[in-house]
Amino acid sequence: MESHDFFLYLLIILLTARVFAELATRLQAPSVIGELFAGVVLGPSLLDWIEPVEAIKLMAEIGIILLLFEVGLETDVKRLVRTGLKSFVVAIAGFILPLVSGFSLGYWVFNLSPLVSLFIGGTLTATSIGITVRVLSDLKRQQAPEGQIVLGAAVLDDILGVMLLALLYEFSIGGGVSLLNASKVLVFVGAFFVLAPVAAKLISLIIKRFDAVSEIPGLLPTTIVTLVLFFAWLAHALGAPELLGGFAAGLALSRRFFLPLGIALHSDECFAHRVEDQMKPIVQLFTPIFFVFVGLSLNLRQINWDSTFIWGFSLTLLAAAIAGKLVGAFLIKEPWAVRGVIALAMIPRGEVGLIFAELGRVSKIFSNEIYAGMVMVIALTTLLPPFLMKWFYGRYGDRL
Amino acid sequence: MESHDFFLYLLIILLTARVFAELATRLQAPSVIGELFAGVVLGPSLLDWIEPVEAIKLMAEIGIILLLFEVGLETDVKRLVRTGLKSFVVAIAGFILPLVSGFSLGYWVFNLSPLVSLFIGGTLTATSIGITVRVLSDLKRQQAPEGQIVLGAAVLDDILGVMLLALLYEFSIGGGVSLLNASKVLVFVGAFFVLAPVAAKLISLIIKRFDAVSEIPGLLPTTIVTLVLFFAWLAHALGAPELLGGFAAGLALSRRFFLPLGIALHSDECFAHRVEDQMKPIVQLFTPIFFVFVGLSLNLRQINWDSTFIWGFSLTLLAAAIAGKLVGAFLIKEPWAVRGVIALAMIPRGEVGLIFAELGRVSKIFSNEIYAGMVMVIALTTLLPPFLMKWFYGRYGDRL
Repeated sequence: MESHDFFLYLLIILLTARVFAELATRLQAPSVIGELFAGVVLGPSLLDWIEPVEAIKLMAEIGIILLLFEVGLETDVKRLVRTGLKSFVVAIAGFILPLVSGFSLGYWVFNLSPLVSLFIGGTLTATSIGITVRVLSDLKRQQAPEGQIVLGAAVLDDILGVMLLALLYEFSIGGGVSLLNASKVLVFVGAFFVLAPVAAKLISLIIKRFDAVSEIPGLLPTTIVTLVLFFAWLAHALGAPELLGGFAAGLALSRRFFLPLGIALHSDECFAHRVEDQMKPIVQLFTPIFFVFVGLSLNLRQINWDSTFIWGFSLTLLAAAIAGKLVGAFLIKEPWAVRGVIALAMIPRGEVGLIFAELGRVSKIFSNEIYAGMVMVIALTTLLPPFLMKWFYGRYGDRL
Repeated sequence: MESHDFFLYLLIILLTARVFAELATRLQAPSVIGELFAGVVLGPSLLDWIEPVEAIKLMAEIGIILLLFEVGLETDVKRLVRTGLKSFVVAIAGFILPLVSGFSLGYWVFNLSPLVSLFIGGTLTATSIGITVRVLSDLKRQQAPEGQIVLGAAVLDDILGVMLLALLYEFSIGGGVSLLNASKVLVFVGAFFVLAPVAAKLISLIIKRFDAVSEIPGLLPTTIVTLVLFFAWLAHALGAPELLGGFAAGLALSRRFFLPLGIALHSDECFAHRVEDQMKPIVQLFTPIFFVFVGLSLNLRQINWDSTFIWGFSLTLLAAAIAGKLVGAFLIKEPWAVRGVIALAMIPRGEVGLIFAELGRVSKIFSNEIYAGMVMVIALTTLLPPFLMKWFYGRYGDRL
């Protein structure tokens, strides 16, 4: 690809994302909806101006990882640990119920093969942490109890989702399912999630020392991005989702990082502030690329809007997808308004669901019709919750 | 390319660039040498760990354009206009003399064909504005009179270089040379250079207005990068080098932007400061990628170090390359120390020379031997001046 063509793509993406985000806020909608919509407009669904070329895809992936880094940066580890059990309940229920109901509907109601039904269930398990987090932070509720529960649950769901994807992938290429492999991954990921923030904290102390003595400007942006990319890469190498690495690095550098064992690793407020200040413009530049990319990946033209099967299929699965996530929220002990927000926040399937559906399509497990139906389910679960959450906060925000 | 592989490449590039830059400053060398050297070490010359894949190349190009944006941001337009004539003399002399001497040496001394000789001359004309600017700004001499003269001359050389490249390209594919086309490009580029900063200034006023009212964070990083990419794209569309667009956008947003015609477009110090603060981390993140990329593109293994022809050929051309740029500096009326710095600063051929040489190679005009010789000339002209400039400032800095 010629660099001037790439510049044109990138500038159209950045500009359209901004214009639609501004329009969305004027219309009282969440800004992330504007960015997703920008992708839908620019992509194959409508104008087909922008192809999701590799360099854009890679910058989008940097975007989501940096967004999770920022989320980590603003997370209070103590509070995350405190809400841990509730997150766990929400995540497990929101994983198992959509999987089971998706499978059952596919197998018994729509008479599909077990493998297809399993993939349908898998697609419904995902939670798009990116979209959820953006909506919460747009509404400034990321630090609230419900925000922390959702954050923890979405992270856990991502881990479970990746493991299921790996299992289904083995299954689909006929390699059989190895529970040994699956549990190995689980151990690795667990170890990563406990050890990575500590390791990142130690590295950040080295960066801080160099920051004090380096004569060349620009130490923080390059080394912090390096750190984030390293943990993203490491997470992937251990079988975990890459954005978990970004989150772990963010946690380690946050002002509220806390270690049960080592009180010596206390955080330096001033350094944490410098990191936040310098990383913010970089994060803000990359994240819209991600949301536009999600919109670009949704091809709404693939949906045959006249087919009664697709409408029946996708609306049934949509109900299952929503109900499956609702139950988890109502299993925990919280005021009903908090449960309501958690339930809504867990609904978006976003890019994770698309990855599942795409895997189903390329491995020829999903027919075009099933694929289109799944895309519709993913689109609706992704596009509706931001509106619903905003409305819910507007109406019941005083009870939270 | 898988995203985790890309993350690994990118983090190795960023980390190695930083480590080598820090080492370079400890050894009293300019930090840009460290970054170039990082590329040489990681690339085909030595370890061959990193391939210059497309996404890295595109990010490197964003890097050089953003660097030129930052240079523009710090440029005093009044002073640039004042040094205009001197820059013009330096640029024209530094363009014609290497072209003529390169051609003559190729044709008469080494008995090469006229076309090959013309390409050799063309390769010698380039001035790598990126490397020159980095060395000057590392030494904090960018705002000094010699810095402004060199900056103007390097920009003009870039325009002349691109025009020559276009002509040689037409020539090499046998299309004949159209002077009409060449003059059309010259008019376009001239118009661009006069009008682009004014247009960018007008757009920046719109951005400033939105900055005051937008409720979504991150307006400045996305819109300013969009603006820079747009002018880079526009510059290319009009036949000018892309980095000129970055420079024009930077000029327009600088605190010292000045218009002979419209005094109404005065700059707002506070807004200019905000732009600088938020763009700095982004520029600092992307620019090292560019310099590492230049190092990656240099394959020193292609040089047959035992061949007497190559040594004779490249050392002769090196002398011509250096002498050709020296003369221009001594045509202008400045203290001799200033002339000395200007002469040294104009020597690096860097990435522009490599583009010429690469065009010669792929169009089979350069044999492997000639190409290797040219790479050696480019490598030496690129790697030596930063050291020489630093030494020169250390020794004669008090006379400037």
